[in-house]
Amino acid sequence: MSDTAPGSAYAPTPRTVPTRSRERASYDRALVHAILDEGYLCHLGFVRDGAPVVLPTLYARVGERLYVHGSTGSRPLRAAGASDAGLPVCVTVTHLDGLVLARSAFHHSVNYRSVVVHGTARQVTDPAERAIALDAIVDQAVPGRSADARRANARELAATAVVALDLEEVSAKVRTGGPNDEPEDLSLPHWSGVLPVRRTYGPPVPAGDLAPGIAVPDYLAAL
Amino acid sequence: MSDTAPGSAYAPTPRTVPTRSRERASYDRALVHAILDEGYLCHLGFVRDGAPVVLPTLYARVGERLYVHGSTGSRPLRAAGASDAGLPVCVTVTHLDGLVLARSAFHHSVNYRSVVVHGTARQVTDPAERAIALDAIVDQAVPGRSADARRANARELAATAVVALDLEEVSAKVRTGGPNDEPEDLSLPHWSGVLPVRRTYGPPVPAGDLAPGIAVPDYLAAL
Repeated sequence: MSDTAPGSAYAPTPRTVPTRSRERASYDRALVHAILDEGYLCHLGFVRDGAPVVLPTLYARVGERLYVHGSTGSRPLRAAGASDAGLPVCVTVTHLDGLVLARSAFHHSVNYRSVVVHGTARQVTDPAERAIALDAIVDQAVPGRSADARRANARELAATAVVALDLEEVSAKVRTGGPNDEPEDLSLPHWSGVLPVRRTYGPPVPAGDLAPGIAVPDYLAAL
Repeated sequence: MSDTAPGSAYAPTPRTVPTRSRERASYDRALVHAILDEGYLCHLGFVRDGAPVVLPTLYARVGERLYVHGSTGSRPLRAAGASDAGLPVCVTVTHLDGLVLARSAFHHSVNYRSVVVHGTARQVTDPAERAIALDAIVDQAVPGRSADARRANARELAATAVVALDLEEVSAKVRTGGPNDEPEDLSLPHWSGVLPVRRTYGPPVPAGDLAPGIAVPDYLAAL
């Protein structure tokens, strides 16, 4: 391996080591990538006038970088481009996998996989990287879609801000399995177990103005 | 109506009026409540050492108040209790309803309903309010469950922090409907429409140590 090849794990930092449930934390690069790649909606946090702001937005992962896009008029994207220093952000992606029902209220929990990324978001100005990022954001939600849509024209590109966040200070957190009941609670008469939670898709709904004869594409049916 | 009855809408503030897509913003109290009541997982943002942190966590709504709980050792909950001033937070709840595929990459979007709450989280110390909050957090995900579980004992209560956030500075944002394609794109050969997204539940998985004869409760089957 070369000196610059990424290791198999992200290096923990003070803010990526949790104060509790440490056994749920992971810095494994493949696990982080898998969690990020399964999603496309993140919650983007930043600080405005000293107070936290959390907004839902779409993202894509390309290698060791996340991309987020938006209107050039949106406040966080404007802030990310306003200075060379960029904008400190926290991007969190969460998959809810199950509701964990224990005999005791205290041991109720959820099964989940989450990734938290800390870093500095910077505006992407290179046209080639912007094009890659915009395609990736479309393909993150619907793989294959970017090749089956009209690409942005000059006017649309001018209205779109793209920001990048490098995957450097990253952790995953995972809970799996059943409830962890206290031994003395096992004889209680309450049902105990896990209710699995999934994200599913309904049948595609064609646009009202879709021309007859344009079938649902295979990449969409595959979801 | 008395002077203290809440109005039918939250008062907009500079930070709850978006800079763009204003037509998607709403301050309607019933809409905000409906969005909050359909969920139970939020993304909680706060500021630590000047940088944003966003963590997924469970919540409940009781009237005009959100509750979040956690270990007394968790950093944000400790911070909320560390001073009378409380902890400035932003709580965001997002429901993803559909992927919107337009003929142009630029007009790709998502249908969603989100609520963003800005405010100050404060530790709840009153035992009666703590009990209400802890029941509500269990019932928010599985209505009816808190009555069918052992309530927290003194040791468990001592290990649990509960924080409250009043619903005062609140906004909802909603996108519905199909793609908004440019007129000149309507003749392009790309499929256009919406792929509905839903949160669904799989069959309940009983704990390995569940006694025979304890059936899946009705409130769980109802989900």
